[in-house]
Amino acid sequence: MRENGKRRIVRLKDIADKTGYSINTISHALRGMNDISEETKSYILKTASELGYVTNSIAQSMRLGYTKTIAVILGDISNPHFAILTKEIENTASKHGYSVFLLNTNEDEDQEERALKTAIQHNVDGIILCPVQRSEKNVRFLQKSDIPFVLIGRYFPEMDGVRYTICNDVRGGYSATEYLIRHGHRKILMLSGPAHISSAKERLQGYRQALADYRIEYDDSLVIEVPIMETDCSTLLPEDGYTAIFAFSDIVAWSAWKVLRERGKRVPEDISIIGFDHIQSRLSLPYSLCSVSSYKAKMSITSVEMLISIINGNKEMENIIIDTDIAKGESVSFIS
Amino acid sequence: MRENGKRRIVRLKDIADKTGYSINTISHALRGMNDISEETKSYILKTASELGYVTNSIAQSMRLGYTKTIAVILGDISNPHFAILTKEIENTASKHGYSVFLLNTNEDEDQEERALKTAIQHNVDGIILCPVQRSEKNVRFLQKSDIPFVLIGRYFPEMDGVRYTICNDVRGGYSATEYLIRHGHRKILMLSGPAHISSAKERLQGYRQALADYRIEYDDSLVIEVPIMETDCSTLLPEDGYTAIFAFSDIVAWSAWKVLRERGKRVPEDISIIGFDHIQSRLSLPYSLCSVSSYKAKMSITSVEMLISIINGNKEMENIIIDTDIAKGESVSFIS
Repeated sequence: MRENGKRRIVRLKDIADKTGYSINTISHALRGMNDISEETKSYILKTASELGYVTNSIAQSMRLGYTKTIAVILGDISNPHFAILTKEIENTASKHGYSVFLLNTNEDEDQEERALKTAIQHNVDGIILCPVQRSEKNVRFLQKSDIPFVLIGRYFPEMDGVRYTICNDVRGGYSATEYLIRHGHRKILMLSGPAHISSAKERLQGYRQALADYRIEYDDSLVIEVPIMETDCSTLLPEDGYTAIFAFSDIVAWSAWKVLRERGKRVPEDISIIGFDHIQSRLSLPYSLCSVSSYKAKMSITSVEMLISIINGNKEMENIIIDTDIAKGESVSFIS
Repeated sequence: MRENGKRRIVRLKDIADKTGYSINTISHALRGMNDISEETKSYILKTASELGYVTNSIAQSMRLGYTKTIAVILGDISNPHFAILTKEIENTASKHGYSVFLLNTNEDEDQEERALKTAIQHNVDGIILCPVQRSEKNVRFLQKSDIPFVLIGRYFPEMDGVRYTICNDVRGGYSATEYLIRHGHRKILMLSGPAHISSAKERLQGYRQALADYRIEYDDSLVIEVPIMETDCSTLLPEDGYTAIFAFSDIVAWSAWKVLRERGKRVPEDISIIGFDHIQSRLSLPYSLCSVSSYKAKMSITSVEMLISIINGNKEMENIIIDTDIAKGESVSFIS
């Protein structure tokens, strides 16, 4: 309905005016109560639908104290890994009757703070956050505000009482490195994520553990930190000194592969590459990247279920650490 | 704040209790009014922040009649094309003070209807919709509900008064086909999107026009319809009879490339491929797909600006049709 050029929400009174029934009767009919005849009910519902009536959930939320909304706050939705997580979160939330606010942090702490405040201003019932992790500040703020929240993909090992769903990044980093070692590689370049991010730190830890277990000396110059929002690693990739690459993410791995091709190097004949996230489980690409699979659907579904459980007052939540696996691909071969 | 295990929103009264000032003083301080001393103001703001106070936007929206939220409803956020659009929409909306609800339709009309109703129930100020287009039903419902909305990427040529931002799909389809023809190809397989989708229909129309202009006979058997949510086209791709492929989207193009490789065919030596959307403008991949670029950022920004303009009562909106361009890539070569 539009009046004087301004949109007007269809109210019970409009349906009453149109049908001639009282507001009380309209309200009972819309709520499916049994004191109205089926015929009247169906006439009222039909009229309501024609007028474009839908339940006003803001009025409802003022009455009931919840909004049936959650916020999903993550680095960058245009990264396919986050996009796949978000899709699964939205699907699961929707099945439980929740709608999703989407907010990007662009891996910036101030933007993360604004996103959290925006979410709280909109009275979301809870938040799923992939934290920027420049500091603990924003998560401390969340704790103080006492809004239910769950971290996804990253966590703060030293913070108590913060619930999270992550994958086993140490194990994932270990398996990736071991997989390359078992293909004969000993000079393995690690394209690591920024050290303030827990998943980056733990994947690197796994890399170091695998090297140690296989008695390969750790070489500082073979660990390069790649900025998290950067998809072009052409200036960062060393010219030589390695036969394989373990990349923090598939995005970084693809970029490295591209740069190697531009330099006339063949993958995997000259350099083997393994990534992390296994985005190709959801995206058909002509060339298959070997990757660490982290069961994105499981991580998303678990994070939503944990959050709803916390919203419903459950305090005895276990954190969830999801297994990883190697997804084979043509980007890794035995050293020649 | 938590009381008896139930979360409690921090209210003005809590800040008043903590600081000893009246609710009236607290309210003036939080709204930055000048009748409070700077010292008091700063003490109140500090205390408010410590308690985790944020403006309650639901109460505000009841008072002011808007929610500063918009809904973005599209096919599948895990499709990188939609993910990139969504990121730009969220960024632009956020700059204008709007938060974004994200809802997927999975290209299903019933799910689209539920998504629209959910958005309206949450009293969003407006909706950006990439319509499923099985019928006009859901968009007719939107028109009747009188909520401001803008279509993105697809439109209904026969519906009056429905605002949209699309790219020039006829022109894009024409250019893609012409580009292949100019590389010597005459047997061009079109992997088309479903015919009920306007962009699919118009890209096909562009393909046919280009063939006609270059006096190449249109061959029905060279047009294959690929389901929109399907990323695996292995069963649909003909074994032979063509030297080039024009795919409705990059997703379909990549899938076709993968299938060709599995069949031992080389791209571009045996078969050239051109896609649509130019996802690789945002995603570094080792092998570059030639594609029609549709200026995703421009489309997203325009759709948000159009929507906000409609929300603000502007009725004289022009629809926007964005130019396309060819993004060159190694997947196309001259016929050998």
